[in-house]
Parts: sequence; C-alpha cells; structure tokens
Amino acid sequence: MEKIRVLGICGSLRQHSTNMGLLRYAQQASPEGLAISLADLSRIPFYNSDISEKPAAVNDFFKELEQADALLFACPEYNYSIAPVLKNALDWASREPENRLLAGKAAAMMGAGGGMGTARAQYHLRQVCVFLNLHVLNAPEIFCNAFAGGFDEEGNLMDEKIQKQIGKLMTALNAWTLKLR
Amino acid sequence: MEKIRVLGICGSLRQHSTNMGLLRYAQQASPEGLAISLADLSRIPFYNSDISEKPAAVNDFFKELEQADALLFACPEYNYSIAPVLKNALDWASREPENRLLAGKAAAMMGAGGGMGTARAQYHLRQVCVFLNLHVLNAPEIFCNAFAGGFDEEGNLMDEKIQKQIGKLMTALNAWTLKLR
Amino acid sequence: MEKIRVLGICGSLRQHSTNMGLLRYAQQASPEGLAISLADLSRIPFYNSDISEKPAAVNDFFKELEQADALLFACPEYNYSIAPVLKNALDWASREPENRLLAGKAAAMMGAGGGMGTARAQYHLRQVCVFLNLHVLNAPEIFCNAFAGGFDEEGNLMDEKIQKQIGKLMTALNAWTLKLR
Amino acid sequence: MEKIRVLGICGSLRQHSTNMGLLRYAQQASPEGLAISLADLSRIPFYNSDISEKPAAVNDFFKELEQADALLFACPEYNYSIAPVLKNALDWASREPENRLLAGKAAAMMGAGGGMGTARAQYHLRQVCVFLNLHVLNAPEIFCNAFAGGFDEEGNLMDEKIQKQIGKLMTALNAWTLKLR
Repeated sequence: MEKIRVLGICGSLRQHSTNMGLLRYAQQASPEGLAISLADLSRIPFYNSDISEKPAAVNDFFKELEQADALLFACPEYNYSIAPVLKNALDWASREPENRLLAGKAAAMMGAGGGMGTARAQYHLRQVCVFLNLHVLNAPEIFCNAFAGGFDEEGNLMDEKIQKQIGKLMTALNAWTLKLR
Repeated sequence: MEKIRVLGICGSLRQHSTNMGLLRYAQQASPEGLAISLADLSRIPFYNSDISEKPAAVNDFFKELEQADALLFACPEYNYSIAPVLKNALDWASREPENRLLAGKAAAMMGAGGGMGTARAQYHLRQVCVFLNLHVLNAPEIFCNAFAGGFDEEGNLMDEKIQKQIGKLMTALNAWTLKLR
Repeated sequence: MEKIRVLGICGSLRQHSTNMGLLRYAQQASPEGLAISLADLSRIPFYNSDISEKPAAVNDFFKELEQADALLFACPEYNYSIAPVLKNALDWASREPENRLLAGKAAAMMGAGGGMGTARAQYHLRQVCVFLNLHVLNAPEIFCNAFAGGFDEEGNLMDEKIQKQIGKLMTALNAWTLKLR
Repeated sequence: MEKIRVLGICGSLRQHSTNMGLLRYAQQASPEGLAISLADLSRIPFYNSDISEKPAAVNDFFKELEQADALLFACPEYNYSIAPVLKNALDWASREPENRLLAGKAAAMMGAGGGMGTARAQYHLRQVCVFLNLHVLNAPEIFCNAFAGGFDEEGNLMDEKIQKQIGKLMTALNAWTLKLR
C-alpha cells in the first residue's frame, strides 16, 4: 500500500525554531505508513495580486502541496493570532484554480509558544481551514509552552509528555487521512 | 489645541488596493482637528527574531507609530483572517520594550473585501488588539463589499453609503482619542 | 441500506422561528437515504452541575442524539454569538461519559438572522464543535438574512437561492456521513 | 465624589461556583471608591421574542444594570465558549431601546475553569461586547485554573497569585470607568 505523504509547514523562520522542532519530532514519531517532508517557506514573498508571475519559491511550495495527502501545521502564536509566514504561504496556495492544492485534504495542527501554547493562534488557523476546505483533526490538540524548558538550544523537543502527544497525533492523522481518501 | 495624529495602516500592497482607497477617503472625510498620514509597509520583511538589526523600513514605521495618537486599520480579508502584511507590521511593532509604540492608544478599523466585507478578519484583528493593548472603537463597524462596484479602477471609494460611514468613524475616532488622552 | 438519521437542532424557541423554517425545508430537500427528525429543546433547563438527576426533557434529547448518525444545526445569532438555547443543549449532551452522544459524528450548520446571516455565531459554534469532537462540513456555508423577506409569516423558507443551498448542504452531509461511518 | 457602582455578573448557577468566588473576592479587593453588587441570574428564563411581558427576574436585573457604571463578568467556559446563563442575561439586556442598559459602559472580565482558565470563552465574550458596545479592559486578563486547587470547598478563592491579579483588575477598572465617564 502506498505511503501517506504529509507536508509539514512551520510558521517560524528562526533557525532554532521550537515549532520546527515539533515537526522534526513528528517525523521520528510517525507510524510506518506515513512520511513527513518539510516545506521551506523562507523565500516566499508576501502575497500581492499585482505579482503576475509566481516566484520560484512559490512554485516549489506548490509542488510539495500537490504531492501531499495531508498537511501538518506547526503554528506559532504572535500577538494572539497566526504567524504571517504561515498565513502567507496558505494565502498563496489558496489562489490556485478550484483550490486544487488544498481542497478536501486532511490536516492536523500543533504549536509551541507562550502561556497558552499557541491556542489562540490555532483557533484562528482552524477558521482559515474552513475556507481552505481542509479537514482538520479535532483531537488531540497540542499546546506546547516553549518557555517552560521542554526544548534544547537548537529547538529539539525534549518534553516527554508532548512527545507522546505528537505520537498520538500522528497515529490519528494517519487514520484520518485514510478515512478521507 | 494640538491636532490628533492618526496613522493609517493598510494590509494590502496592491497598487490599486481598495483598502488603501478607504484610507484615502478617510483623509478627506476627517474632522478639522485630526490628520491622517499613511504608513508604507511595502519594504518591511517578515518578522524573525534571528534578525538582530532592525531593517530601515521597520525603523521608519516605528517613527510613524511614535508620533501617532491613534491608529486606523484598513484590514483586507484573506481566507477568513488577517492579511499577513498588516499582521506582520504589528508583530514587529509589538516587540518594543513595554509595548511603547502601541500601549493604550486609540484605534479604529474598516475593511474592503469579499462577501462579508472583511468581517471575519476584523474580529481576528480585534483579538490581536487585546494583546497589543489598543483600545478599538466598537462602532461604527465598516464592512465594505469591494466586488459590488463601490470603487473606481484605481481603488478610489465611490460608494456614498460607505463614505458616510467613514465620516462617522472618523468623528467617533476623534472623540474617542480625546477621551483616552 | 440503512437510512442516515439526522437530528435537526434549532437554537430558537420562537413559534415562527426562521431557523426552524430552515430545518423544515431541509427535511423536504433531503436525498432519499437521509431522514431528519427535529429535537425539542423548549423544556431543557439551564445546565447546572448541582442538578443531580437529569430532567425528563434532557433524557428525551439524549435518546434522540443516541439514534442520530449526524447533526444539523440551525444556528441563530444573538449579539454576535450563539443562542443560549442551542449552546445549553450541547452543554448538557457533552457531560455524558466519553462524550458518547457526540464524539466522531458528522455535523452541518446553517442559520438565519441579521446582516451577516449568523456568520459570527456559526464560527463560534464551529469552535465549540472542536471540543465536542463533531466533524463539521466546511461547505457550503449557509448564511441567510432573515430580514430580507425570504420567509413567510410562519417562518417557512421561500427564498429559492437559499433553498438550493440547503439542497446542496443535505447532499454533502449525506456523503460526509457515509464517509465518516 | 460619588462611588463607582459595578455590577458583578456570574455565568454559573452552582451553589459553590468558583466564578462566584472570584466575584466575592473582587468585592473585598476593590479600591475605596468602587462598590460591587452581585446580580442574581437564577430565575431569568431563556430569551424568546414571543414572550411579550418581561419576567420579574428580568426586570430586577435591568434595574441593577441601570444603576451600574461598569460591569464585571465572571465567565465560565463550557465546551470552548460562553456559559448560556451569562450569554442569555446579556441577550435580554441588549433588547432595550437604544441599548440603553449597556451602551458605552466600562467592563472587565475574569474566569475560573479548565486548562486554559476560560480563555476561549472570554475571547468569545469580548466579541459579544463589541456589539453590546461595552468597553472592555484589555489587561490584566485573568485566567484561573479552577482544578488546580486554588479554591476551598465553597468556591472561595484561596490562590494568592490570582488574588493579586484581581486586585490589579479592580484598580484598573476603577481608573477605566472614571476615564470613560
């Protein structure tokens, strides 16, 4: 049986991003039949409908989306809402005809950040996903307090409780993607 | 008496942006004692805490914020939430010590966009403003359907009903800013 | 093949409720294999954890939920959020062990109300459904302006555009419920 | 100088409600010039526009609102949103001509509940307050985890950190109400 291909999308560009750390851990923790690749959003410019030709970095991102069966968001929270880097990548993707890159795909989210572990940003992202017609897992929700010492200096996830939650999330995403196929 | 200085901040970079058109109209429609200048967000890069030196465009924006008594947002809606250009500018501004550029200032918002006239994005922006400690006017709310023919080709606002609402908004922002001084 | 049983849940108690009118129309417009029954929330008291014995009206509602494969919400909007009658019924239902009445079921929503057709309330209801672990259809979204003349005096839906949308919603709910089985 | 009169409004009807405990503590912690009375919502029925005569309990609540300079909400969270008892009381109040009971008043909120201390419900309540034209304090935000042992068996607040926050909230509400007069 064919592997499920998941695209991991991180809203932070920091070199030692804890959100990227969540995605790296998800790669390790994934079940057999599921493989996660990581999108590079660092060269995608702000969306602007005056831009007539798609930048190369946008084209690369679109190819990754085309091949993905499901999306996995690592969602930072800035000022109680979504990080612009993440939102902007989705705004570009949503402009394709008939929403062909996203419509009907399975999705899951998690996030590392301040006191509430990015909860406020994740609920905004869930509303975005309604329009994008992504089917987001309800549970488990992963809200990781990045300032409580669960990461090493390079942003690698060390917190065992969150590690277990991510394992469960990946198992759930695997089953959910198969159901929606 | 000193003039109230309002900084207009537009979330769209399009040359003929209808949201910028709302701001230009607000400039005309403002009461005597209030003057609106327009921020230029086009060269502000994505926020990234690895960037150690503030880019020149960010410094320019900060100077405009310093001088502003109140903020006026023109808030597009992309995919049921805030445009990254607008959110990103606020994310940069929020990183100053003690939130000195924003804390306690008066604010108002309006937006031009699809079916609901950017309402969904504006409610997200209102949540952002809680953390930024901006005091946003409750009313009037201005939700402008940009696809119903209320703008000319250069994005100038022609719709008389919205023009009147903007007049009321500016009067209200004037009074609100004086009250909060 | 067994019929899909949908429970229609209306947030308004008015005799000539337009939201109940949406549900009645949905009953007519449903595809062959799907049948909608309507919950009666009029005698369900406010949830209060001091109430040790479940009121009869709550028990009746629970039996209807047990038999339902999917839920269809008619969601009024009061003051930019959910009507208490609807929210309260869900609050009672959520207290059952392991969320057995709701977890994993398919759901759809629509609403009739003021200017934005209950959109603001529906996005709040969608957030509620995350915790309830209901899988809500993303599209079509049905936002019906009840004050624009689309209903007769008894709250029956006369607006043909909304009628068509409800037909599409029921077809989509049928397919979605089968997929999630 | 006249005392500021604050009406405390609690969304839970439980006898030993921790949210009511927050309000009782706020009464103790209030500055000199501010007095908090507590509304009784226990006999207010679900709003229904078919009810032609206002119930006595609604009339009593309206009298309390009339006399209040500011509102203080104790906001439980049920299923990621507002408790119906609280929302319903506000829905009744909003129906008065020209929103005379609420328009332009100062407000503050706090809440005791599950993991995030009612944050999700409070953001929904903030959106409700936009329409009600209440001016809600941005800070401090009080999110109290009621299951972490900060209350005695009768719902009295024992947690010293939250006690201090409530003291700050009341000082801020005092200043905010004076400013908005």
